[in-house]
Amino acid sequence: MNHNINNAHQEFDRSKFQRKAVQVPDAQSIIKEYVKKGITETVKLEQGDGRVLATDIFAPHAFPTFRRSGMDGYAILSTDTDCCSNGEAVWLKVIDNIPCGSVSDQIVTSGTASRIMTGAQVPEGADAVVMLEMTESRIEDGIEWVAVKKVIEACKNVTPIGLELQVGELILKKGTLIGPGEISVLATFGVHEVEVSKRPVVGIFSTGTELLDIREPLQPGKIRNSNTYMLASQLSEAGAEPVVMNAIPDDITLARQKVEEALERYDVVVTTGGVSVGDYDIMGDLVRSGTMKLLFNKVTMRPGSVTTAAVKDGKLLFALSGNPGACYVGFLLFVRPTLRQMLGMKELYLKEWSAELGSDYDKVNNFTRYVRGTLEVSDGRVIAKPAQLDESSVMITIKDSSCLIVIPPDLKGAPVGQKVKVLLLPGGLS
Amino acid sequence: MNHNINNAHQEFDRSKFQRKAVQVPDAQSIIKEYVKKGITETVKLEQGDGRVLATDIFAPHAFPTFRRSGMDGYAILSTDTDCCSNGEAVWLKVIDNIPCGSVSDQIVTSGTASRIMTGAQVPEGADAVVMLEMTESRIEDGIEWVAVKKVIEACKNVTPIGLELQVGELILKKGTLIGPGEISVLATFGVHEVEVSKRPVVGIFSTGTELLDIREPLQPGKIRNSNTYMLASQLSEAGAEPVVMNAIPDDITLARQKVEEALERYDVVVTTGGVSVGDYDIMGDLVRSGTMKLLFNKVTMRPGSVTTAAVKDGKLLFALSGNPGACYVGFLLFVRPTLRQMLGMKELYLKEWSAELGSDYDKVNNFTRYVRGTLEVSDGRVIAKPAQLDESSVMITIKDSSCLIVIPPDLKGAPVGQKVKVLLLPGGLS
Repeated sequence: MNHNINNAHQEFDRSKFQRKAVQVPDAQSIIKEYVKKGITETVKLEQGDGRVLATDIFAPHAFPTFRRSGMDGYAILSTDTDCCSNGEAVWLKVIDNIPCGSVSDQIVTSGTASRIMTGAQVPEGADAVVMLEMTESRIEDGIEWVAVKKVIEACKNVTPIGLELQVGELILKKGTLIGPGEISVLATFGVHEVEVSKRPVVGIFSTGTELLDIREPLQPGKIRNSNTYMLASQLSEAGAEPVVMNAIPDDITLARQKVEEALERYDVVVTTGGVSVGDYDIMGDLVRSGTMKLLFNKVTMRPGSVTTAAVKDGKLLFALSGNPGACYVGFLLFVRPTLRQMLGMKELYLKEWSAELGSDYDKVNNFTRYVRGTLEVSDGRVIAKPAQLDESSVMITIKDSSCLIVIPPDLKGAPVGQKVKVLLLPGGLS
Repeated sequence: MNHNINNAHQEFDRSKFQRKAVQVPDAQSIIKEYVKKGITETVKLEQGDGRVLATDIFAPHAFPTFRRSGMDGYAILSTDTDCCSNGEAVWLKVIDNIPCGSVSDQIVTSGTASRIMTGAQVPEGADAVVMLEMTESRIEDGIEWVAVKKVIEACKNVTPIGLELQVGELILKKGTLIGPGEISVLATFGVHEVEVSKRPVVGIFSTGTELLDIREPLQPGKIRNSNTYMLASQLSEAGAEPVVMNAIPDDITLARQKVEEALERYDVVVTTGGVSVGDYDIMGDLVRSGTMKLLFNKVTMRPGSVTTAAVKDGKLLFALSGNPGACYVGFLLFVRPTLRQMLGMKELYLKEWSAELGSDYDKVNNFTRYVRGTLEVSDGRVIAKPAQLDESSVMITIKDSSCLIVIPPDLKGAPVGQKVKVLLLPGGLS
C-alpha cells in the first residue's frame, strides 16, 4: 500500500505541536468551572446502595429512642446492690419478664427486678441491668427470686436515649456515597426512600482506523479496541452509566457528526484516540475547528500529555489519549472528578497519601509523571513500588496497580526510599 | 403487659452460656472446610466487570503483535543518522505515509524514510522512529524530503513484538476479580466472553419480635430492621446476590421452617439476631436442636462473640448477632471470606496492615477486639484512630470507618502510638 505522499494530510499543521500546556491542577480547575450538578431522583433504600445522597438527612427521632438493655439479665435498682460490697448477696423478687419489643407496665422498686432481654426497653424504676451469667435464681411458691452478688453501678448495661444521635442531628450529608453503614443508619430511621443524584449517562467511543472489534480476528497492523470497555468499567466505578458506542475510523466528518450526536444525547462524552500531533488526529482537529470551546489540549503530565477537554452547549467532551495507560490515567485525573462533581460528591479527586519509593525510578521527564505502582505497608510505613512497564502505551500493568506514584519534573530520577506523593486507585486496596 | 414469669422461657437452659469459645482464625478454618466452590457461567466481557474469572487466561498471541511506533514521526534506519554526531543534518527521501492500521509495502532502505503515526506498524527495513517535532521537511518536484539533525539510536520509539506479553503467557489467573485493567487486557486479546463464577445467592433475614419494617412508624420498645439492608449491601460488595426476606418474630418453629426453606432455595443463609444467651434466642436454640451440624456458637471476639455457624446438607448458615456493629464485623470475618472462597478468589480475608494507634484505646477485654476506626497516612506512616462509639450495639460509626483495629486480649489498653494490626474495610479507602 503506497500512500500518496502529497495528500492533504501530508501538509500537516505544525501549530499542532505548539499547544499551550497546562498543569494538572490547573486543568482540573478549568474543567470544574464548566461542570453542572446533575438532577436527582428518588429510589427505594434497597436500590440506594452505591448511589450518592442528594439531600442532607436529619435524625427524625433520637436513637436509641428508649433506654435499651445491653444484656440479657435483670433490670434492677442499682442501690439495691450496695450491700454486696460486703460480699452479701441480695435477693430480689422478679416481677416481670420483658422480651424485646415489649414495654413493661411493672415499675421496678427496691427489692424487685424484671427479667429483661438484650435490646429490650428498660422498665421504669430500674437504672441498671445485671447480666444473666452473674445471677442465680430460685422459684418459691411460684414466685421467682434472683440473687445478685456484686455491686452494680447505676446505668450499667443501660444504653441511654440518644446515645448515638439526638433528634434533629445531621445524620448524613448530601454528597455522601451510600454503603452498608449509611444504609444501616437510613433504615434505622425509617428512611425507606432516598433522593439520590441521577447517574450521569456517558457516551464513549474510540477513534482509529487500526481498531478491530473485540469479536474480530487479528489483522496485520491492527489492534482490538480495548479502551472503551476499560472506560465503561471505570465509569461504573465513578457512579456513571456508560454507553459504549462503536469505534469510528479516522475521519473528521464522521467524528464531528458522532460527537455532536453523542453530546446531544448524553451528559458527557469521552473519546479515546486521535489527539496526538499526527496527521490523523481527528479529535485534535475537531476541538480546534471552532464548533466547540477548547478548554485545553496539552497537560504537563506523562502519560497523557495530549489529554484534551472541550465544552459545547454546556456539555463536556473529554478526548483522551488512545494509549491504554494514558487513557486510564486521563480518566482518573479529569473525567472521574467531573462525574463526582456532577453527583454532588465532596471529595472529587483520588485520595492522596505520602509514601516511600520501594525501588529506584530513573525516568527523567520535564512533565510530572503518574507512574502506575503497587502500595504495601511494612511496619506501619507505606511503600510504593513503580510497575516495571509504565509506558503510556502499556496496558498490562494497569490491572496490577493500586496507586499512581507522582514523580515531579524537578526530581531527576528518584532513589529507593525517596518520599513521594501517591494517589490511591479506586478499589486498589480492597 | 405482665408476662407469666413461669413460662417455658423462664426455665432457661444455663448450658446456653457454657458455650465453647473458638478463636477467630480457628472459626475461619472450620468454616473453610465446608465451603463448596460454586458453579460457573459464561458472560459477555461487557458484563464481566466486578465478576471473578473462573479459568486461567493465556495470551493467544504476543502483544504487541507487530513492531509498533511509539510516536508520530518518520520510520528510519538509525545508522543513517550516525553523521549527525558532527552536527550535520541528514536528508531522507520520504517513500510512504503509514497511518494506524495500515501495513506499508515499502521497505525502508538507507537514505529513505516513511512517515508513520503513533501506533502504526513500523515498516520493514526501518529500526527506529524519529519524532515529528525533531524533523524538518521540504517538498521538491513532488517528492518529500525530511531532515534529521540528531543521532537516533536503534529501536528508538519502536515497541518490540511481545514487549508486554509473549504468546502462551498466563495473562490472568482464575480467581481474579475483573476490573478496568483486566477488561483492558481481555479486550486486547479478543476474549469477548469470559467464564466467571456464578454469584452465590444468599438469603438473609432478621429475627426479633422487636423489629419494625423500615416503612413502619416507630412503636414503643421497638426498632426498625436495619441489619438485613446493611447485609444486602455487604453481600453485593462481596460478589453475592442478596435476597432480602421478611423479618420474623421470636418463634423457633417459624425460624426452623424459614431457615430450612431458605437453605433449600439459596446457596448460603445469613440471619441476624436470636443468638445471645437470652430466653428468646431462637437461632441459638435452633442450631443446637440437632437438625443441623453446629460449627461454632461462640468466638473469642468483641463485638460478635455469639456469632454462630452451622451446616445442613452441605449448605452454610451464619447466625450473626442482631447488634449492628457485631453483625457488620461478623459478616466481614466469616461470611465474606466464605463467599470469596465460593467465587474461587485467592485472597479470602480482609487485607491486613500494621499501623500506629492514633489515640489511646483503653477498653480492656479478655476477647480480641475488632474496633471500628479510620485510617490516615501522615508522612508515610499509617495512623489508625478508633471510633468514639464502638460498642457492638452502635451502628452510627460503621459508616465512618475505614478499618478494624485489632486489639488483642493481652493488651491491657493500648496507648497512642502503639503498633497495631488493622484490617482494611472494603471500599474504605476509595
